[in-house]
Amino acid sequence: MCGIFAVYSQDDNEVARQIFFALMALQHRGQEAAGIAISTGVNINYKKDSGMVNQIFRERHLAELPGRFGIGHTRYSTTINKTGGRQPYQFACKLGPFAIAHNGEISNYRKTKQKLLDEGVCFFTETDTELLAHYITRSNKDTWEETLAELIREVPGAYSLVILTNNEIWALRDPLGNRLMSIGRKNDDWYIASESCCFNVIGAKNVGSVKPGSVVKIGVDGYTERSVLQYPRATCAFEYVYFARPDSQIDDVYVNEVRQRIGVELWDMTRDRFAEGEYIVSGVPESATPMAIGFANASGIRYNEIFAKNRYIHRTFIKPVDTERKSAVYLKFNPLVNNIKGQRIILIDDSIVRGNTIEHLVAVIKRAGAKEIHILVGSPEIHYPCYMGIDMRGGDEFIMNRCTPDELAQLVGADSVTFLEIERLAPAIGKSELCTACWTGSYPKELEW
Amino acid sequence: MCGIFAVYSQDDNEVARQIFFALMALQHRGQEAAGIAISTGVNINYKKDSGMVNQIFRERHLAELPGRFGIGHTRYSTTINKTGGRQPYQFACKLGPFAIAHNGEISNYRKTKQKLLDEGVCFFTETDTELLAHYITRSNKDTWEETLAELIREVPGAYSLVILTNNEIWALRDPLGNRLMSIGRKNDDWYIASESCCFNVIGAKNVGSVKPGSVVKIGVDGYTERSVLQYPRATCAFEYVYFARPDSQIDDVYVNEVRQRIGVELWDMTRDRFAEGEYIVSGVPESATPMAIGFANASGIRYNEIFAKNRYIHRTFIKPVDTERKSAVYLKFNPLVNNIKGQRIILIDDSIVRGNTIEHLVAVIKRAGAKEIHILVGSPEIHYPCYMGIDMRGGDEFIMNRCTPDELAQLVGADSVTFLEIERLAPAIGKSELCTACWTGSYPKELEW
Amino acid sequence: MCGIFAVYSQDDNEVARQIFFALMALQHRGQEAAGIAISTGVNINYKKDSGMVNQIFRERHLAELPGRFGIGHTRYSTTINKTGGRQPYQFACKLGPFAIAHNGEISNYRKTKQKLLDEGVCFFTETDTELLAHYITRSNKDTWEETLAELIREVPGAYSLVILTNNEIWALRDPLGNRLMSIGRKNDDWYIASESCCFNVIGAKNVGSVKPGSVVKIGVDGYTERSVLQYPRATCAFEYVYFARPDSQIDDVYVNEVRQRIGVELWDMTRDRFAEGEYIVSGVPESATPMAIGFANASGIRYNEIFAKNRYIHRTFIKPVDTERKSAVYLKFNPLVNNIKGQRIILIDDSIVRGNTIEHLVAVIKRAGAKEIHILVGSPEIHYPCYMGIDMRGGDEFIMNRCTPDELAQLVGADSVTFLEIERLAPAIGKSELCTACWTGSYPKELEW
Amino acid sequence: MCGIFAVYSQDDNEVARQIFFALMALQHRGQEAAGIAISTGVNINYKKDSGMVNQIFRERHLAELPGRFGIGHTRYSTTINKTGGRQPYQFACKLGPFAIAHNGEISNYRKTKQKLLDEGVCFFTETDTELLAHYITRSNKDTWEETLAELIREVPGAYSLVILTNNEIWALRDPLGNRLMSIGRKNDDWYIASESCCFNVIGAKNVGSVKPGSVVKIGVDGYTERSVLQYPRATCAFEYVYFARPDSQIDDVYVNEVRQRIGVELWDMTRDRFAEGEYIVSGVPESATPMAIGFANASGIRYNEIFAKNRYIHRTFIKPVDTERKSAVYLKFNPLVNNIKGQRIILIDDSIVRGNTIEHLVAVIKRAGAKEIHILVGSPEIHYPCYMGIDMRGGDEFIMNRCTPDELAQLVGADSVTFLEIERLAPAIGKSELCTACWTGSYPKELEW
Repeated sequence: MCGIFAVYSQDDNEVARQIFFALMALQHRGQEAAGIAISTGVNINYKKDSGMVNQIFRERHLAELPGRFGIGHTRYSTTINKTGGRQPYQFACKLGPFAIAHNGEISNYRKTKQKLLDEGVCFFTETDTELLAHYITRSNKDTWEETLAELIREVPGAYSLVILTNNEIWALRDPLGNRLMSIGRKNDDWYIASESCCFNVIGAKNVGSVKPGSVVKIGVDGYTERSVLQYPRATCAFEYVYFARPDSQIDDVYVNEVRQRIGVELWDMTRDRFAEGEYIVSGVPESATPMAIGFANASGIRYNEIFAKNRYIHRTFIKPVDTERKSAVYLKFNPLVNNIKGQRIILIDDSIVRGNTIEHLVAVIKRAGAKEIHILVGSPEIHYPCYMGIDMRGGDEFIMNRCTPDELAQLVGADSVTFLEIERLAPAIGKSELCTACWTGSYPKELEW
Repeated sequence: MCGIFAVYSQDDNEVARQIFFALMALQHRGQEAAGIAISTGVNINYKKDSGMVNQIFRERHLAELPGRFGIGHTRYSTTINKTGGRQPYQFACKLGPFAIAHNGEISNYRKTKQKLLDEGVCFFTETDTELLAHYITRSNKDTWEETLAELIREVPGAYSLVILTNNEIWALRDPLGNRLMSIGRKNDDWYIASESCCFNVIGAKNVGSVKPGSVVKIGVDGYTERSVLQYPRATCAFEYVYFARPDSQIDDVYVNEVRQRIGVELWDMTRDRFAEGEYIVSGVPESATPMAIGFANASGIRYNEIFAKNRYIHRTFIKPVDTERKSAVYLKFNPLVNNIKGQRIILIDDSIVRGNTIEHLVAVIKRAGAKEIHILVGSPEIHYPCYMGIDMRGGDEFIMNRCTPDELAQLVGADSVTFLEIERLAPAIGKSELCTACWTGSYPKELEW
Repeated sequence: MCGIFAVYSQDDNEVARQIFFALMALQHRGQEAAGIAISTGVNINYKKDSGMVNQIFRERHLAELPGRFGIGHTRYSTTINKTGGRQPYQFACKLGPFAIAHNGEISNYRKTKQKLLDEGVCFFTETDTELLAHYITRSNKDTWEETLAELIREVPGAYSLVILTNNEIWALRDPLGNRLMSIGRKNDDWYIASESCCFNVIGAKNVGSVKPGSVVKIGVDGYTERSVLQYPRATCAFEYVYFARPDSQIDDVYVNEVRQRIGVELWDMTRDRFAEGEYIVSGVPESATPMAIGFANASGIRYNEIFAKNRYIHRTFIKPVDTERKSAVYLKFNPLVNNIKGQRIILIDDSIVRGNTIEHLVAVIKRAGAKEIHILVGSPEIHYPCYMGIDMRGGDEFIMNRCTPDELAQLVGADSVTFLEIERLAPAIGKSELCTACWTGSYPKELEW
Repeated sequence: MCGIFAVYSQDDNEVARQIFFALMALQHRGQEAAGIAISTGVNINYKKDSGMVNQIFRERHLAELPGRFGIGHTRYSTTINKTGGRQPYQFACKLGPFAIAHNGEISNYRKTKQKLLDEGVCFFTETDTELLAHYITRSNKDTWEETLAELIREVPGAYSLVILTNNEIWALRDPLGNRLMSIGRKNDDWYIASESCCFNVIGAKNVGSVKPGSVVKIGVDGYTERSVLQYPRATCAFEYVYFARPDSQIDDVYVNEVRQRIGVELWDMTRDRFAEGEYIVSGVPESATPMAIGFANASGIRYNEIFAKNRYIHRTFIKPVDTERKSAVYLKFNPLVNNIKGQRIILIDDSIVRGNTIEHLVAVIKRAGAKEIHILVGSPEIHYPCYMGIDMRGGDEFIMNRCTPDELAQLVGADSVTFLEIERLAPAIGKSELCTACWTGSYPKELEW
C-alpha cells in the first residue's frame, strides 16, 4: 500500500520533524522501510532506511535535513515492489534533480517495462515507481506541469504520487480516484498525505481531497490544482473496510463511521437468526471493532472484547515455538477467557483472504470454552486479484475460491460464516462510485494489462 | 515494573525461543531493555541489550544460547533502578556462578546499601537487584535453598526474583505477595512468569501462583515449592487496575474481569446523574476499555470508541512539532470525530497520576465537538508514593495532592470528574487482601524505610 | 580510484569468500564503501555497505551469497563519484539483469550526460559508472560482446569495468591502458582484479594483464579476450609512484622495484650535494619507503626510520584537540626522536600535492631536533588536473602552482626541496608509454572534454 | 596487555577528546574494546563498547562527556580477563563512586578470589581488575591515599591502575615496576599513560615515569606522587622487544633505540657466518624492522623490505579460503618478489612463541624464490609462562619447549635459526633490572601463586 506525504512549510527547521510525525501516523500503511527527502532550495538531502519510522530517525538526522519543501514515504512491499529500494527515490532528468514517492500500481507494468527495455532504458529496481520516473524523464514536455499532465493522460493505473524538486512539490492522483490523497493546511503551509489521520499531529487541518486526475503544485505561492482527466470514479472500497485508519476521512467520509454502518448492515442481514437467544458480539481487532460496536448498538446485543491484543508485535524475525505451530497466534490474539467461557459469540472480521487467521482464532475461542461461534465478515467474498496496489494476487490462495461459506464454517469449526452482501457495501460507505473488483471482478475498464 | 520469566524444558533447543516469546508477551512490563540467560549445564551464556525484545534478538542469538534452564527479563526503569545495567545480571559467589532477574523493590534499600558500603561491599549498579545479590553471596548458609529462605525472612520488600544456576532455577516471591508470580506447565517442562499471559504462546498452561513467601526450585526432578514466611497478603491493587495485561490471571482472578466490574461499580456510583439524558461511554485505551464496556453493559448506555490509537508508538526519540506543544498527544490519541461531535461523553480512565494526559484528552475531545465530557476514574485518588516497585514517587507531582476532583474538572475543562470510591475496589477485585497504600497511605507494616 | 574484482570459480561455496579476501587486499584502493554481487545462475544477490571491507561482511553474509560468478568493489570517492551509491550497481536491460563495478572516469562525462538527459534518460546517481550503464542498455547491439566492443570504440575515457550477468563475467579495459586490469588463475578458476596483489591470498597466480582496449569474457568455458581498439598506451604513472600496492605487478613490472629505482634516480640527481657530510635517509611511510631504501643502497647513506606510523588510523570522525591544530599529524606520524636528534635528514616523499602533509612533517622533525632536513620527491611537480580517475582537480590547490621548490623549502622550513626530473621517470618505471599529464599537461589526445 | 590513560585538564570541553586521541595512540595495546569515563564533579559518565577506538566514538559521544577529570582504557583479552566486561568499570564504595581502568595481573588471583568468595563477595566478572576493586572497597582505611598505599603493600602483582573519583585521579604502579606508567604534562594539565607515545598527539610532553610502588594523586592542585614500597625493579623486557610502540620511552629509554641495538647484538653474534657472501637483511614488520635496520647499519649488509604488509587488517571474522589453509598469511604478509628472488635472506623476527607465523613466512619466502633463509630472533627462547599480564600461558604451546633451534630451522624449512643470547638483552636495553622470566624462569620472588 505505502504511505506518502509532502509538505511546504515556511519554517524550514520544522519540515523534517513534520514529516517524521506524519510518517509515524502513516506507519500502518507500510512497516518495511521509510524515508524523508528535503530540498534546501539548491539540492535534495535524503535519509532512508529499512524498519519502522521510529527506529530510523534520530534528532541528528532531522537536523541534517533543512529546507522548506519535503516528502516522505513508508513502504509496504507488494509483489511487484519486492526488489525495490527505499523511497523517496533520488533521480535527475533534464528538468533537474527530483525525489519521488509513490503509492499504487501501474496497470500495464509488464508490457510497458518490456517496451522501455527494448528502447534501451536501464532499470535499477523492479518497481512501478521507477517506471513512472522513466515516463517523466522521457517526456517531450518542457515543464513539470505539462509532463505530469501527460503522465495522467497516458499511464493507466491506480496511483498517488508526490514529487519534490528544488523549489516545488508536485502531486498526482490517478483519474479513477482509486488511490487516496488528502490535502492539509496550517496557515500558509500546505500538506499532501495518503490519509488525513496524520494532520492533527502536526497541527494542520484536513481541507479536502485532491480531485482524481489532477496535477497539484505547491510552491511558495501556495496550492494550485489542475484537473487533467477524469474517469468514472472507482475509489478502493477496501481502504474503507480494512486498510485505512479509522480516524481518516476518505473523500469526506469518516472510515470509522463506515465501519460502524457495516456493523448495522450485518445486523440487518442476520437479525432473524440472532434476535432470539443470548449472544455477545465482538470484533477482530482492530478494523472490525467499530463493526462490532455498530452491530451491538443497532441490535442491543451486548458488545465485549474477547482478545487481548499484544500492542508490541509488528514484525518478528523469530520462528515460533515448534511443538505447536499454531501457538504463534496467541502472541497476537490471546483470549480473554472470562468473556468467552460459556458464551455464544458473534465474531466480526473485516475480511477473509486466505482464511488462516480466522481458523486460528476460532480454535483459540473454542479452546477458551465458547458455546457457539458465528463469524460475520464485514465485506463480501474475495474472488479476484487486485491490480491497483493491494497485495492480493490470489487465485487459489483466496479461500473463497475453494469453498462456500458453509464449507468454510465447517473447515474452521465455526457454527456459521456470513459475508456482507455486496449491495450493502455502497450504502454503508455512503458512496456508489467504488472499485469493488476483488469481490465482483468488474475492474475499471480504463485499465489494461 | 519489569517482567521476569524462567524455564526448565527438556528440549534444550527450544529454551531460548520460549523465553523470547514469553518476553514478547511481557513486553508491556518494560520496554527499556531485555535479556536472556541460559545455562549449558557448565556455564551461563547471555544476550542482553537496550530496546524492545523484538529489536534485540535474531535467530542467530537464539542459536548461541543452548541449554535446558534459562531466565529472561524485560526492564522498566524505576527511580532506583535508573543507573542499573541490563538484566539478567551475571554473578559468581561461593555457590558458583548465577544469573539473576528481578521485579520489585527492597523497602529499606538506602539504609541497607549504606550498611553494606560501610562493610566494604563494592557496588556496580544502583539497583536493589544487586543488593539482593550481595545478600545472597554474603549469607552463611551452605545451600541455595537455605540462603534464599534466609533472604525471605530478613529482607523486607516487595519482589519477585528468579535465579539461574548451572543446573537449577530458583524463584522467590515476597511474603506479602505484593509482586506477582505465576506458574506454567507443559508436560514435564516448568515455567515461572510475572504474568500468566505469556503461557499460551509457548504452549503452556497456567497452573497457579507461587504462594507468597516461598522458595521455588525447578530442577530436572520438577517443581518444588517451600513456604518460608507469610505476612497478611497485600497484593498490589494497581496491577489489576492498570499495569497487568487483561488476559492475565493474578492469583486466580482475571484482570479483564476486574476491570469490567470496576465499570459496573462506577455506574453504581453515578447512576443518578447519568440515568437521564443521552450519553455515550468510552474508555481511554487500553486498560480502561473493559471498564467502559462493563459500565455500558450495566447501564444500557451506548459504548463507543472515541480515539484511534496509533499502535506503532511505544517510544519516540523525537521532540514534537513545536508550534503547538500539545499536538504530540494526537500521535497517540487521534479523535474519531464522527463519534464525538455533538455527544455527551462519559470517558473512563483507569487512574490519574499527574493529570497531564487527561488534560490533553479533554482538550482533544472538546475540539472535536463534544457537548459534555464527564471523567470517571477507575481507581481512587492517588496521594501517596509507592515503595513497592511502581514508579510513583509523587508528592506534589500527584495532581490530587493539589486539587479536589471538582477543581480538577475545572482545570482540565471537563464537566465533572469522579473517582472510584476506595471501598468499591475490593469487591471489584474480588479480594480484600490488597495493598492500597498509594490511595490510603496504609503501607504494609512489615516494610520499613 | 576504486578497486574491482571478478571471479569465476567451480566451487560455488567459495566465491563470496574469495571476493571478500581479494577486497581486503584491495582495500587501499577505496575505504569508503564495499560491495559483493554474486549470481546464482538465476538471479544476482548483493551485499553492500559503507565502511571498510572488514566491518561490512560477516560469515552469514557470505553464506547468503552462493554462486560461481561474482564481482566486488571497494569505493574511493572522486569529485564526480561523490553522490554515487555503493557498487556493484544493480541494473536490468534488454539483455537481462546485470551488476557492474567500475574504476576510472569517462572523459566527456558532462557533455555526454547532458546529451542523455536531453534524450530522456533518468539518472539516479552522479557517477560515470551509471553513464556506462546507460551506454550499454541503449546500444542497438544484440549481444553483450558487441555491445561492449561498441562501448570501447565510442566512449573515450580511462576505465576498467567488470560486469556480472547471470552466467558470465565481462570485463573491459580502456584502449589507452590507463587503468589497470590483472588476470589471475587457479586451475580452471579465473579472476580479474585492479591489482595483482590480491591473488596470493586466494591461492591464485598472476598470469598477466588484460590488453588495453579488449573485451574479456569469462564463462564456464574459461577465459577469452577480444582486442577491439588500441591507442598508444598511456598507463597511469602515478599508480607506480603512489597508489598501487608495492607487491603488485602493473603490466609485468613490480611496483616496489619501480619505487626503489626512483630512489636510485634521486641519488643520481643529488649525489653532488650529499656525497660529503653525514646524512641519514628515510621515507614517508609507506609508498616512499622503498624509494629511501633504493637511495640508501645506491648511495651508501644510512637508511633509518624516523616515524612510527600508527597502523590503526584509516579514518577518524573526531576533530583534533583544538589547542594546537597541528597536533593531529602526530596521530599518524609520531617522531622516533632517537633517530632524528642531531641528524642531517634526507626525507623522501612520493609526491607533493597540496603541501600540507610535508609542512607538518618538517615541523615535527625539526621539533624532534634534526640538524638539517632535505626533501626529495619521488615524482615531478604536479601542475595539471587528472581527468582519468585520480582525485586531483587542482589549480591553485596544487602547491607547485603557487611556488618554486626553493620557495616551498622556505615555506615548510626545509633546507632544500628537490623533485624528480620528469625524464627520469620512464627509466625508473622501465616503460615509456605512460600518462604523465598531471606533471606535463600532455593529455592523451584520444580523450575529449 | 591493555592501555590505560588518565587526564586532568583545565579545559573541561577537551578532556573526552584528549582521551579519544590518546586511546587511538594506545590502540596497539588492545583492540577488543575501549572506554572513556569522565567525572562532571558530581557524577561519572561512561561510553564503552566493543571494537576499535575509531569505531566506537563519534563527536556526539564526546559532547555527552563533559568534565575535567577522566580516564580511558583499551582492552586486550588475556586468559583471565576473558569474561570481563569493558573498562573503565563503574563502582561505588564507602568513599563514593569511582571508575577504574587497569593493565596487568594480580599474581595470586585464584587464591585471593577464592578467599573473597568464601567471605561472601559477589563477583560480576572474572577479571583481576574487579579483584582490585574489592580490595579497595573492603579496606578499613578512611582515605583513598591510605587505601591505595595499603593495596600496594598487600597485593602482589604486576599492574598499573588508574582510578577516577568525582574530583581526583589516582594512579598506582606496582612495586616491581613491571608494568609501565608514563607522566605527561601540558602547562597545568596532567596525564598518566601506559606509554608515552600518546602525549604528542594531545600536545603534551613526556616528563618521566611513575616510580614503582607509588601512589599518584592528580587533583586541582596538580600532581603528587608518594612512594610506598619498592622491590628490586623488574620491568617487563618483552615490552621493549615486542609490545610497546617504537616511539615510546619506557623509563627514559626509547623503545626504537633498544630494537636497533638488538639488531647490532644479533650482528655481533653472527658476524662470522654472514661476513662472507652476499645477503640482504629484513625484518618481520613491524617490531623487527628497527632490529633489521640496526643489523644492516652495523654490518654493512644491505637492508630491504621483503613483505608488503596490508595495513587494513587488524581482525577478520571471516574464515580463510579453504583450498589452501595457509593462504591467509598472504593477507597480512605478501612477498615483494623482486626483492626476494635469488637472494640470500636474513630475516629478523622479534620473538617466536608458537612458531606458526614464522613457518608460514618461510614458506612464502621460499615460494618467492629465495636462495637461503636465515632466521634471527631478537629475543631468547621462550620457555616459561607469563603471570604478569602478557597472554603467554605456554607449556607445550611454546615451540621452543618442543625443539632446538636447529630442529626448528628444519621444521620450518629455514637454513638456520638463531636466538638472541640472554646476556645480550640487558646491554641492548641499557638496563639490568628487568623481568626475564619467560626466557629464564626466574620470576620476581615477591610474587606468589
